[in-house]
Amino acid sequence: MSGKKGKSGVFISFEGGDGAGKSTQIKRLADAVRATGREVVLTREPGGSDGAEAIRKLLLEGAADRWSPMTEALMMYAARADHLERVILPALERGAVVISDRFSDSTMAYQGLAGALGEKRVGALQDLVVGSNDPDLTIILDLPVKDGLARAGARSGNEQRFESKGTAFQENVRNAFLEIAKRNPERCAVIDATGDMDMVTARVLSEVKARLSLL
Amino acid sequence: MSGKKGKSGVFISFEGGDGAGKSTQIKRLADAVRATGREVVLTREPGGSDGAEAIRKLLLEGAADRWSPMTEALMMYAARADHLERVILPALERGAVVISDRFSDSTMAYQGLAGALGEKRVGALQDLVVGSNDPDLTIILDLPVKDGLARAGARSGNEQRFESKGTAFQENVRNAFLEIAKRNPERCAVIDATGDMDMVTARVLSEVKARLSLL
Repeated sequence: MSGKKGKSGVFISFEGGDGAGKSTQIKRLADAVRATGREVVLTREPGGSDGAEAIRKLLLEGAADRWSPMTEALMMYAARADHLERVILPALERGAVVISDRFSDSTMAYQGLAGALGEKRVGALQDLVVGSNDPDLTIILDLPVKDGLARAGARSGNEQRFESKGTAFQENVRNAFLEIAKRNPERCAVIDATGDMDMVTARVLSEVKARLSLL
Repeated sequence: MSGKKGKSGVFISFEGGDGAGKSTQIKRLADAVRATGREVVLTREPGGSDGAEAIRKLLLEGAADRWSPMTEALMMYAARADHLERVILPALERGAVVISDRFSDSTMAYQGLAGALGEKRVGALQDLVVGSNDPDLTIILDLPVKDGLARAGARSGNEQRFESKGTAFQENVRNAFLEIAKRNPERCAVIDATGDMDMVTARVLSEVKARLSLL
């Protein structure tokens, strides 16, 4: 199976609010793809390359209001450009399946549709930096905000800045991902992420099979 | 004298290749403006605010090919957004005269017209981040590349990345600044930066007087 832009690899991103179970589902999809003999490259945003990790570190340091929405989005897209050029595109060129924990849709959801920057400005950055290199498939793990926060709250971790904005903001983010899916039906699949992890995995694998004939 | 956008301050940028004498001329213009009783805010790019300086530091660290032209331009504009929002616009709001050692035209010259990124992509970032907040006056200090390199070579300093690209590149940068001036005659003044520093200062002050009635 080839990616849609003449590259031999396939690019899949996972999106969703906090606690949607992205890490678990990504690991399981990666195992299933590896079992077919394909190379899998697991990556994540913000970060994913040495340069992008350095930018991510700078972005997450300091007070919550250290960076304005515009500055934050520019740094995220600087990190994304590095990640794309240094990790994702080379992996796709050599035929790998790249699975990224978050990609551009997170910026559109958190900073664009649900955030202070607005979709028009995020869209301008997206056109400039990513252009036609968006994923072949985006899995949006969807679940009620209270379920996600309950799961996320059970985890420990330091980089809580993006998770500390409250329930109303998380509702806006959920709606933003659903709106993105509605606007990009060929690229995006919304997966019900409630209930048992194994059931969610079955839904994810079924969607990947239906859309990419990768498995 | 008011800036053109309803702010009470005045925003002046200095541009030009290495060794054009920007630091000296900025200091002298600042002294002349201060003598009239106006508050002067001296700043510079890349950098100029705490956040922008942190981005500048990250940008200048490491090997010359650490960042791609696109990543570099995004980080420069992230720094510029911070600099503009946190330092320049607040100073203009309170009526100060802001003098910046380099601003957007440097990105358009080095990364856009003379660099690998191209003017279209730098222009898109410029529209997105700076919009109508460009300087009221931009002084472009122009001199032959060999004169500039001779002056710059006489200085010591560490951050030589941007100065190490050779004479042909510096010629392209000089031509880029002249092209920018040609396209923006109302904002840009090209000043002959050859010869005695005092003569150059006289030319700068005369141009500021003619264009801004600030002195």
